[in-house]
Amino acid sequence: MFLADPRLQYPVRVDTPNPVFARALQQAIGGVEGEIRVMMQYLFQSWGSRGPMKYRDMLLNTGTEEIGHIEMLSTAVALNLEGAPLSFQEEMSKDPVAGAVLSGMNLRHILSTGLGATPEDSNGVPFNASHVYASGNIAADMYSNVAAEATGRAVAVRLYNMTDDAGMKDMLSFLIARDTMHQNQWLAVIEELGGPAMQLPIPNSFPETQQKNEFAYGYFVHAADGAVPEGRWTSGSSIDSKGTFEAMVSKPLGDIPQLAPARPDGGAQTDQTTTTPMASSSSTTL
Amino acid sequence: MFLADPRLQYPVRVDTPNPVFARALQQAIGGVEGEIRVMMQYLFQSWGSRGPMKYRDMLLNTGTEEIGHIEMLSTAVALNLEGAPLSFQEEMSKDPVAGAVLSGMNLRHILSTGLGATPEDSNGVPFNASHVYASGNIAADMYSNVAAEATGRAVAVRLYNMTDDAGMKDMLSFLIARDTMHQNQWLAVIEELGGPAMQLPIPNSFPETQQKNEFAYGYFVHAADGAVPEGRWTSGSSIDSKGTFEAMVSKPLGDIPQLAPARPDGGAQTDQTTTTPMASSSSTTL
Amino acid sequence: MFLADPRLQYPVRVDTPNPVFARALQQAIGGVEGEIRVMMQYLFQSWGSRGPMKYRDMLLNTGTEEIGHIEMLSTAVALNLEGAPLSFQEEMSKDPVAGAVLSGMNLRHILSTGLGATPEDSNGVPFNASHVYASGNIAADMYSNVAAEATGRAVAVRLYNMTDDAGMKDMLSFLIARDTMHQNQWLAVIEELGGPAMQLPIPNSFPETQQKNEFAYGYFVHAADGAVPEGRWTSGSSIDSKGTFEAMVSKPLGDIPQLAPARPDGGAQTDQTTTTPMASSSSTTL
Amino acid sequence: MFLADPRLQYPVRVDTPNPVFARALQQAIGGVEGEIRVMMQYLFQSWGSRGPMKYRDMLLNTGTEEIGHIEMLSTAVALNLEGAPLSFQEEMSKDPVAGAVLSGMNLRHILSTGLGATPEDSNGVPFNASHVYASGNIAADMYSNVAAEATGRAVAVRLYNMTDDAGMKDMLSFLIARDTMHQNQWLAVIEELGGPAMQLPIPNSFPETQQKNEFAYGYFVHAADGAVPEGRWTSGSSIDSKGTFEAMVSKPLGDIPQLAPARPDGGAQTDQTTTTPMASSSSTTL
Amino acid sequence: MFLADPRLQYPVRVDTPNPVFARALQQAIGGVEGEIRVMMQYLFQSWGSRGPMKYRDMLLNTGTEEIGHIEMLSTAVALNLEGAPLSFQEEMSKDPVAGAVLSGMNLRHILSTGLGATPEDSNGVPFNASHVYASGNIAADMYSNVAAEATGRAVAVRLYNMTDDAGMKDMLSFLIARDTMHQNQWLAVIEELGGPAMQLPIPNSFPETQQKNEFAYGYFVHAADGAVPEGRWTSGSSIDSKGTFEAMVSKPLGDIPQLAPARPDGGAQTDQTTTTPMASSSSTTL
Amino acid sequence: MFLADPRLQYPVRVDTPNPVFARALQQAIGGVEGEIRVMMQYLFQSWGSRGPMKYRDMLLNTGTEEIGHIEMLSTAVALNLEGAPLSFQEEMSKDPVAGAVLSGMNLRHILSTGLGATPEDSNGVPFNASHVYASGNIAADMYSNVAAEATGRAVAVRLYNMTDDAGMKDMLSFLIARDTMHQNQWLAVIEELGGPAMQLPIPNSFPETQQKNEFAYGYFVHAADGAVPEGRWTSGSSIDSKGTFEAMVSKPLGDIPQLAPARPDGGAQTDQTTTTPMASSSSTTL
Repeated sequence: MFLADPRLQYPVRVDTPNPVFARALQQAIGGVEGEIRVMMQYLFQSWGSRGPMKYRDMLLNTGTEEIGHIEMLSTAVALNLEGAPLSFQEEMSKDPVAGAVLSGMNLRHILSTGLGATPEDSNGVPFNASHVYASGNIAADMYSNVAAEATGRAVAVRLYNMTDDAGMKDMLSFLIARDTMHQNQWLAVIEELGGPAMQLPIPNSFPETQQKNEFAYGYFVHAADGAVPEGRWTSGSSIDSKGTFEAMVSKPLGDIPQLAPARPDGGAQTDQTTTTPMASSSSTTL
Repeated sequence: MFLADPRLQYPVRVDTPNPVFARALQQAIGGVEGEIRVMMQYLFQSWGSRGPMKYRDMLLNTGTEEIGHIEMLSTAVALNLEGAPLSFQEEMSKDPVAGAVLSGMNLRHILSTGLGATPEDSNGVPFNASHVYASGNIAADMYSNVAAEATGRAVAVRLYNMTDDAGMKDMLSFLIARDTMHQNQWLAVIEELGGPAMQLPIPNSFPETQQKNEFAYGYFVHAADGAVPEGRWTSGSSIDSKGTFEAMVSKPLGDIPQLAPARPDGGAQTDQTTTTPMASSSSTTL
Repeated sequence: MFLADPRLQYPVRVDTPNPVFARALQQAIGGVEGEIRVMMQYLFQSWGSRGPMKYRDMLLNTGTEEIGHIEMLSTAVALNLEGAPLSFQEEMSKDPVAGAVLSGMNLRHILSTGLGATPEDSNGVPFNASHVYASGNIAADMYSNVAAEATGRAVAVRLYNMTDDAGMKDMLSFLIARDTMHQNQWLAVIEELGGPAMQLPIPNSFPETQQKNEFAYGYFVHAADGAVPEGRWTSGSSIDSKGTFEAMVSKPLGDIPQLAPARPDGGAQTDQTTTTPMASSSSTTL
Repeated sequence: MFLADPRLQYPVRVDTPNPVFARALQQAIGGVEGEIRVMMQYLFQSWGSRGPMKYRDMLLNTGTEEIGHIEMLSTAVALNLEGAPLSFQEEMSKDPVAGAVLSGMNLRHILSTGLGATPEDSNGVPFNASHVYASGNIAADMYSNVAAEATGRAVAVRLYNMTDDAGMKDMLSFLIARDTMHQNQWLAVIEELGGPAMQLPIPNSFPETQQKNEFAYGYFVHAADGAVPEGRWTSGSSIDSKGTFEAMVSKPLGDIPQLAPARPDGGAQTDQTTTTPMASSSSTTL
Repeated sequence: MFLADPRLQYPVRVDTPNPVFARALQQAIGGVEGEIRVMMQYLFQSWGSRGPMKYRDMLLNTGTEEIGHIEMLSTAVALNLEGAPLSFQEEMSKDPVAGAVLSGMNLRHILSTGLGATPEDSNGVPFNASHVYASGNIAADMYSNVAAEATGRAVAVRLYNMTDDAGMKDMLSFLIARDTMHQNQWLAVIEELGGPAMQLPIPNSFPETQQKNEFAYGYFVHAADGAVPEGRWTSGSSIDSKGTFEAMVSKPLGDIPQLAPARPDGGAQTDQTTTTPMASSSSTTL
Repeated sequence: MFLADPRLQYPVRVDTPNPVFARALQQAIGGVEGEIRVMMQYLFQSWGSRGPMKYRDMLLNTGTEEIGHIEMLSTAVALNLEGAPLSFQEEMSKDPVAGAVLSGMNLRHILSTGLGATPEDSNGVPFNASHVYASGNIAADMYSNVAAEATGRAVAVRLYNMTDDAGMKDMLSFLIARDTMHQNQWLAVIEELGGPAMQLPIPNSFPETQQKNEFAYGYFVHAADGAVPEGRWTSGSSIDSKGTFEAMVSKPLGDIPQLAPARPDGGAQTDQTTTTPMASSSSTTL
């Protein structure tokens, strides 16, 4: 169950409203790297958590924090929209030169919300909840969370660099710090659970004897000329300490697939329903 | 530029076709954890790669490998659909008891593709390319890739456990091994770049002086009763070695947001356009 | 800012787990009539609220309540999935006759979440945040909310009737009651603001002199035979008390549209770029 | 069955084409508040109508009218695109200062349609038919329709205010009037059926004895400090006349959920599969 | 402007309701091959039509016909749902053996619509209007329409074969016939315009001198072993009579792309911002 | 299985980077007319191919070529983004007049990818794999492919006309040529299979005796005034040579649909559950 404090987690101040920056901020709300995603991701991970209760609790805490981040950013969007032009003639009267504010806006900020935020990204694409990764596997979830916070912090940093509004920079420097914590937090869980060597390969509950181990540590080269980009992944012990990296040119181990011809009542063309190849050998080699 | 070898990377064999398992396999093709996603993710990361060329090359190699995995799984779907019932009456004539095959199928396997695979997940939801994470930040990308391979291997393991078809188990044991390699591979890049302590916080190019450092290593407690789920994330040095973890009860640092009233020509109700609160103080405390 | 109490708002108990009912419950979570939608809808309405603060507060309260409803339903899904078959052979060993449980499940409950809820509807379609209606107009929002709670309660009632699990019925009878309150609550706002006659037409800030009033209260008949389905909408004073209903056969008041021919450099066919009609009069009347 | 008259329902005239306004108009076509939505919503409600035939007929009439509104708006988009720049150099030659027309356009208006409308919103997001609410419950449908027309009229009013093109204002003043009628029309059905008190709670066919009546009229306060935003919804008779409003501080009535540990063969990490908590009591209170 | 006749274009009769067939029928309504798509596609092509008016008129006619096809199919879905089980216990009481009807249904047919059709496909995925192809190029549109009717007829044929309900077979045999007409109709336009040789390559308004003609009629072989699947496309005059087919092994004509390193303020990792390759030559060849 | 050559199929050169053109180019990558679509479409058609192997091989070749086209266009996007402004202040310092570059960009090119391409269209809408048409019917697939290449070439031509960058024009003139080949290629398959007269109606495996032949060649007129747009489709032999075109005024052959009233436990309103019409005859004729 949840409670709300009507005050913001951190102050949100806009010194000079910028409706195009309002559009940019949407990426941090409804973008795939944004706060709606992490909020729902951590909460769904918590609610479906099986195993030690402490992780359920921790995820619940941080998911709850993220709701407040959406609130902050939505407030920032609304404040950046104050004073936005509502018409072409209004914009022209303000500044006949620039002229690019209205056409650079998310027009739904005018037409659909009356100068408020939307659960969309910076292109106006609505958030799609398929981005909520909650796999039932705690290690997979932690790496999904690191990925979310890494891309989220990259977006926040780019927003910080995009503006010179002191209020916005202050708010973003707080969110950037929180993303720092959360990146560390999720990796701390991996460390607490024994570190990557113990947790990999994920899921680590699958018996190694049931995977094709001869292919489990080979870097497959698919370059036409067999060139190998060497690196940590082509030699030495694997990160999970269970194998040794090596480079291998990938070769087809299977055959050309052979599907049965189409059934006469299956909606194909008649030509597809015969077992005899339509023409005799039709292939040459250049 | 790309080339094709018409043979499969690894043999695909189905001993006993199972049209419902064909539906399940779709998760590994067009699901958010599936092969279309990693194929496009690695290729887009490669094509947009800025910085050392070796990573571009490596991503290109592995992205190219993944195309062949979609090919293998699509073949597996088609083979599992051979002999599938095309009508209710046909199903009934085969086995009046079971009766659940046709109704448990992805009906598009009959209606739309004539017994072939689709770029959809196991519920028939088409792949949406917003899941292609290519952030322009190599560390963020590597963690996104670990997440993709971790959830991907979890799906493959669950498919392996779902069936007792020897052919399918063999194919899946190969794909499971490849996911093992790829999890290791992406973390090997992080290690080659100096490890998490050097790469975190991501992006590590953002000056630490510009983030609110007092909030960068605090685990915020949002529990109504202040209970703290203690763990590696509440004390000790942070994973990035740049701070010390501590638990902090989250307090609102900001105020209640105040937005301007609606403009008379902004499409709101008239009641919203006055600066005077509609009623005098309307709040009590229970 | 938000806080969490780890306890549920209302007890969630499942007496006999039913994995297909777990799929059905998803409609109340991630369906367009579900709790994710109302949670986000009320919160975004609150965060973008312009005008009297009391409505911002009220929306914040009820949006916060809804987060807890998602939590309850996600728990219900997870509990209904306990004991679900993870493989075809397991299902068969349990009950060779029924056989329809696994094929009737949302397979992502097995493959993607390890027996937990997803932010999807009962067909596995992920929630799309375009369903978050927050118009910046309080009356439009209230009616959007009534619509959401009316369809939401219909879904809850149908779920209640679908199961005979006493625990699930108990939980649903609580959620059904809450929807009753919320339907009343949103209409109470309309009443407080003067009732429909004062709030309609929405937005009521638009000057009536600027709309084509002769068409503002006519029920347009588009039936080929001119038949009029008579009702409250064809005579008497309008609901907003500003006009009188009447039935009118709709007649085309405009002409056939005439667009300019395609530009030669606009990517059309050459035939489309000439102003001369391709053929002389090509139309007859049967 | 349907018939077409090639003339428009109302004249569509554009005095000064504005390609950015063409983008804005798309919101009224393919936006969630737009005409495609109401067209399909009313037609699907009609086609699935169970109960008195007059409502089926009425919905069919008005759904048919809406097809013509899409036609009008699509024509308006095409006319606003006439003369649009097709290249950067063309735009520059016209007006080196403004420069914002092409970059402010929906580029698909050039690239995909050759200067015609699309079934998309003002951000270019295609219409998604999940917005077609047809619940099988006539009262729920009527409120969904009021919501659609209220948000639709808000969009139309905002478009009207955005432009000073006399032709466009004339067309929009017609559409605004039609939305006035339709808001009244749907509420007239509620009135004809006895009014909200008789129709609420929706569905009114569900026995009141089966809902938890003690929670059916309470306004739940989720504010951390227990502050209550008082209003019509906190005291007095409910709108449905079946209860009395009161404010209640929400308290958790349930427990902390306890899910079973993960199955060893379920794709989780090994740490999640043991029933013993991983660590002894890990929680303190700050 | 449009008119409705409340009678159906063709009789719709269901002899034995089958709720799973109702799900299947949805593919013909809201599937990518379905009637909503062609209805909107032909209408949008008509409304954006530039060039000879007769094509606008023709498209308007056929688009209008298609609305009635959605109506027929929606009626068919509703009739197939009559008598559907609304609960697990009801289903069991009817037939304890089969048990697969409810779990094989589109559960939204129960939960969301109260036994009516939805604008979704057979998997419950809502129609997405991006499938409305209206290119502003009449030849491209005609081929898009042939494709739509070819896939549409394939779906209708497969539905016909799936059922043995005489009423449904009768309705489908009508729709199948209409698709026959429409396939012919769109190709008739191509013929009227001079046939493929005159209309290709589409758009035929683009000067041939501006395309790289040396690559305009070569079949590129991308097989690793250079094998050529010979056919009509590897020799002889091209279909557009403007070139001669030949097979060519595809060779890379470009270089390895070189992007600039990342900017220090662009949100990348520090390692990506240096122009010096991170390591000396890191590539070998296996 | 697939191989990569790190060199591009054709040179990609940008003389003057244009970040708004980068947005436009996205239509050719992730738009419904773009290269991701054809790549996946041809590969899925190949992988599901039933019938003569030569078509499987040919589709595999051309699908493989298309991967390289995505690569070329992604490179072009990245090169057009070099030097793009990352902040409002940076843009202003460059050119205080223009000011429209940043606001006209796909902001995800800055925020999400760090100046790289995305799998999205020119409005930032991500590619949705439902556009991958692979019907299991070779003739339907070939027409789908012609449609894809026709709309694809229209987009490429419009991009060519939009820019005057010599490098971009060169690259596009290559892609335009390849689309010429592919349009011819797919129609060559139809010709090889006997031409439209033999392949139509698609699927040609459905017995003509089972379709309502009296409606299979009639052009249905749905105009309110019965006007017929005459053309090749109203007289003469049909394209498939199996019938004779004629124009017919469409008349309703069916009745008004009659659905059963709602069930009392089905979540409808009580008024809908009675068989007696609510009111006596409520319809008049104007």
